[in-house]
Amino acid sequence: MKQIEDICRIQVRFSEIDSMKRMWHGAYVSYFEDGRESFGRHYPGIGYADMQQAGIYAPMYDLHIKYYAPLCMNDVAIIHTYYIHKPGARLDFHYKIFRESDNTLCAEGDSIQLFIDDKGELMTDVPEYYKTWQEKYL
Amino acid sequence: MKQIEDICRIQVRFSEIDSMKRMWHGAYVSYFEDGRESFGRHYPGIGYADMQQAGIYAPMYDLHIKYYAPLCMNDVAIIHTYYIHKPGARLDFHYKIFRESDNTLCAEGDSIQLFIDDKGELMTDVPEYYKTWQEKYL
Amino acid sequence: MKQIEDICRIQVRFSEIDSMKRMWHGAYVSYFEDGRESFGRHYPGIGYADMQQAGIYAPMYDLHIKYYAPLCMNDVAIIHTYYIHKPGARLDFHYKIFRESDNTLCAEGDSIQLFIDDKGELMTDVPEYYKTWQEKYL
Amino acid sequence: MKQIEDICRIQVRFSEIDSMKRMWHGAYVSYFEDGRESFGRHYPGIGYADMQQAGIYAPMYDLHIKYYAPLCMNDVAIIHTYYIHKPGARLDFHYKIFRESDNTLCAEGDSIQLFIDDKGELMTDVPEYYKTWQEKYL
Repeated sequence: MKQIEDICRIQVRFSEIDSMKRMWHGAYVSYFEDGRESFGRHYPGIGYADMQQAGIYAPMYDLHIKYYAPLCMNDVAIIHTYYIHKPGARLDFHYKIFRESDNTLCAEGDSIQLFIDDKGELMTDVPEYYKTWQEKYL
Repeated sequence: MKQIEDICRIQVRFSEIDSMKRMWHGAYVSYFEDGRESFGRHYPGIGYADMQQAGIYAPMYDLHIKYYAPLCMNDVAIIHTYYIHKPGARLDFHYKIFRESDNTLCAEGDSIQLFIDDKGELMTDVPEYYKTWQEKYL
Repeated sequence: MKQIEDICRIQVRFSEIDSMKRMWHGAYVSYFEDGRESFGRHYPGIGYADMQQAGIYAPMYDLHIKYYAPLCMNDVAIIHTYYIHKPGARLDFHYKIFRESDNTLCAEGDSIQLFIDDKGELMTDVPEYYKTWQEKYL
Repeated sequence: MKQIEDICRIQVRFSEIDSMKRMWHGAYVSYFEDGRESFGRHYPGIGYADMQQAGIYAPMYDLHIKYYAPLCMNDVAIIHTYYIHKPGARLDFHYKIFRESDNTLCAEGDSIQLFIDDKGELMTDVPEYYKTWQEKYL
């Protein structure tokens, strides 16, 4: 099974810098999401549009972030997003965020998403679109 | 026609403070929205739930903000939201935001919302739920 | 050693609701921070103002969130923030977020903050203001 | 006097989409700011770093946004930022935001920033760094 990874690049925004002159720690959640969306554009089939069409969404279930070094004004973040295959009806990603200027690892994280059907019920079976995606890319 | 006004109170959040140690100017947009939502709870009938039921939404068309004095860490904002009656299919509000500690006027603003139907088309007639609301409160 | 806990109440904002009509999962980071700030107002001495005066800040080092049930439009969140005492130069909190209308536990989380001095260096000794606070409240 | 303009490109984020499945109207404030920052990187000398070095900041004084058409999930925004020269100690920009896919004009806006010195006092004289910048680019 090959490793599936995406890399994207985000300019830190003024509005994300807090009064300690560092990127606010909550902004990393958006960066992970930017990473997932970029991943979804490179490996299509599990993006928001696919979910919407199937009526099956994948809300966040578990999110873990470790902060090692700050991102500051004018920094550019390089986001590495790794798909982690786990059996069952779940979607797992690992993230690494680097500061572009000196390649420092600023943050690392993990997320687990579960699937809910169009009635909002948790699904225990793997949705069809996700199965199709797994057969194509794994 | 009586003046319709709501007053609400919001604690400034750490994440809203920017690197100049003032509330970021974009955060005032949320405060105006907090004002409108509080207004809608006091004068029910034009809130988000009513719009959703009718399938008629009121997206923002025009927003104007004037900044006079900063809100800072630990400040509390007092938001005054005034309904401004204008003829036609539009929803107008005026806002004043005060710093609670010394009653300074920090910002003032105006917004215009228009109505779109369930096909996303701009409406030229006043929606029924808004007519009903006007008859009740104006 | 007595348990130290704060409870606060936050109205969910329209701008926090995502396209799945649930509160965006990243907004919970602000709610935990709201919880910490409310805690700091009830048990003064480790708030932002104290940190600024001492020149010693406490950036986030580790954040973990578990999502159980959604918060939606017009919901009110009840945030329970628990101080967790751990030896050493660190600040630990546990959080529980409930939906006010039916008392459902929507999310739970943990955070670890470390201390950095005015040169941005990680501190291994407990800062004076934090020692004073611990003597007062623990 | 030549016209000074910058164009930048921003991918709409999932967290910016509201429950009406459009970009939340408040997110446009960040897009204008992204426009100004991109402008500042192309015409250096009035960026945040210059302000910080001089101890003279330029907080927002007046912001006006007109909304014509929505930006939605997966859209890319093209931001045009125009420097508008006005005499005196003020910084004026005009903005146009287009949807990349079909070149629709989605929003337009204007902003005025004033200058405050290191004591937080409003300046009536044009700051040195801004004079230098004007001599270079106008």
